[in-house]
Amino acid sequence: MRKREKRRGGRPWPKREQRRDDLALIYGWHAVQAALENPARRIRRLRVTPNGARRLEELGIKLAVAPDIVRPEEIDRALPSDAVHQGVLAEADPLPAPALEDLAPDGIVLVLDQITDPHNVGAILRSAAAFGVSAAVTTARHSPEATGVLAKSASGALERVPIVEVVNLARALDAMKTRGFMVVGLDSTGDTDLATVTLCAPLALVLGAEGKGLRRLTGSLCDQVARLDLPGEIKSLNVSNAAALALYIATTKLRS
Amino acid sequence: MRKREKRRGGRPWPKREQRRDDLALIYGWHAVQAALENPARRIRRLRVTPNGARRLEELGIKLAVAPDIVRPEEIDRALPSDAVHQGVLAEADPLPAPALEDLAPDGIVLVLDQITDPHNVGAILRSAAAFGVSAAVTTARHSPEATGVLAKSASGALERVPIVEVVNLARALDAMKTRGFMVVGLDSTGDTDLATVTLCAPLALVLGAEGKGLRRLTGSLCDQVARLDLPGEIKSLNVSNAAALALYIATTKLRS
Repeated sequence: MRKREKRRGGRPWPKREQRRDDLALIYGWHAVQAALENPARRIRRLRVTPNGARRLEELGIKLAVAPDIVRPEEIDRALPSDAVHQGVLAEADPLPAPALEDLAPDGIVLVLDQITDPHNVGAILRSAAAFGVSAAVTTARHSPEATGVLAKSASGALERVPIVEVVNLARALDAMKTRGFMVVGLDSTGDTDLATVTLCAPLALVLGAEGKGLRRLTGSLCDQVARLDLPGEIKSLNVSNAAALALYIATTKLRS
Repeated sequence: MRKREKRRGGRPWPKREQRRDDLALIYGWHAVQAALENPARRIRRLRVTPNGARRLEELGIKLAVAPDIVRPEEIDRALPSDAVHQGVLAEADPLPAPALEDLAPDGIVLVLDQITDPHNVGAILRSAAAFGVSAAVTTARHSPEATGVLAKSASGALERVPIVEVVNLARALDAMKTRGFMVVGLDSTGDTDLATVTLCAPLALVLGAEGKGLRRLTGSLCDQVARLDLPGEIKSLNVSNAAALALYIATTKLRS
């Protein structure tokens, strides 16, 4: 079971929302616009403020459901107290998840080894979309759901980066290696600076959890475990920052 | 809000501490250890769980205040519900802030133009420490305080990166230019890819707010406004991810 986002500020989740484990809550303009424009995303309900309704009309997106025009407070109440929803909230079915076998052995795939913070996973997916990553592989356990803060932080990337959820990451990495992927783990204890590793596509970049890094078995299955050399006093980055840097280095190297 | 508590030994907690606006709340091991090891940081109170106390002893840090050993729930109650405190909470005076004139015209300085999210500012400071940035300049308004989530996300970097707070950013950029800084703004609408700009030290890298980017006046004062070219469908990164990438590119270019 994946963890439900904890609510800040002490207000309890509204009961009705609490039962809808199977619906993704998507709020904020970037995230909602991308969801509305994604033909694979089935929107169940769309709530907008009067201002939001005007903006929606300006954007001229064809809508499958008529929006409910509501006061901002109604959207406030449906979300954690610190959610910056910008007057728009969509409730939608989760996207169909591709199977590992469906991944084209091509380009870069990001593998997230139990990264738990939805802000981090969202930012990583956003960077993945920015660097043209073809998919993200996550673990079924110890990964946040693709909803709420994660969707907001992803800023539309949820609609662009397919997420493959696997039960057994070790088996998944083995399967990817069999299919020709070079598997490179990132860890501060890595043997080599990523900038000096010869990389080739298809490439799987594996990122470990905040604080803990790669699990031992995950690291042992990588073709290489690389570090990011940092010149300053602190020797590790926030995991989404490390992911952005690794993607920059990898895409630059694969292009050259 | 924390209830008025009896101090160990029965003395009531001094009134001054109860108005805690001026105290920084620092929790989580990386952040607290760095604070305890920083001779410039005055710790007013340190609460640890019994496990935390053992770990503190193992670390062998000389403490200026005797820790209060408390149940985890007491620390829970003193913090927002989603704070991952790992059994340790310090309350400390904010660090003395250097004046702009005290900044050595040397290396890289990060300038944050009204970046408001404390997770982002914390992660940016962490990257700043990782890349050996000499200071961060922030605006007095529309910047989060150096406490709580920001301190946790900074993971000890608050103790390492001096923060210069300025009332008027335009005047500050002018002053930095007079003192020889090359001022480069980052914005998705920038003229040139940062990777192709000839950079020289001392360098001020200016980052704009989430969503909004650089303010117009800020941009107009930059020697150059550069973008980060991204090959994928999404054309902007989370601001802390962009900062990490810009720092990597800048430090690599300044070294070569």
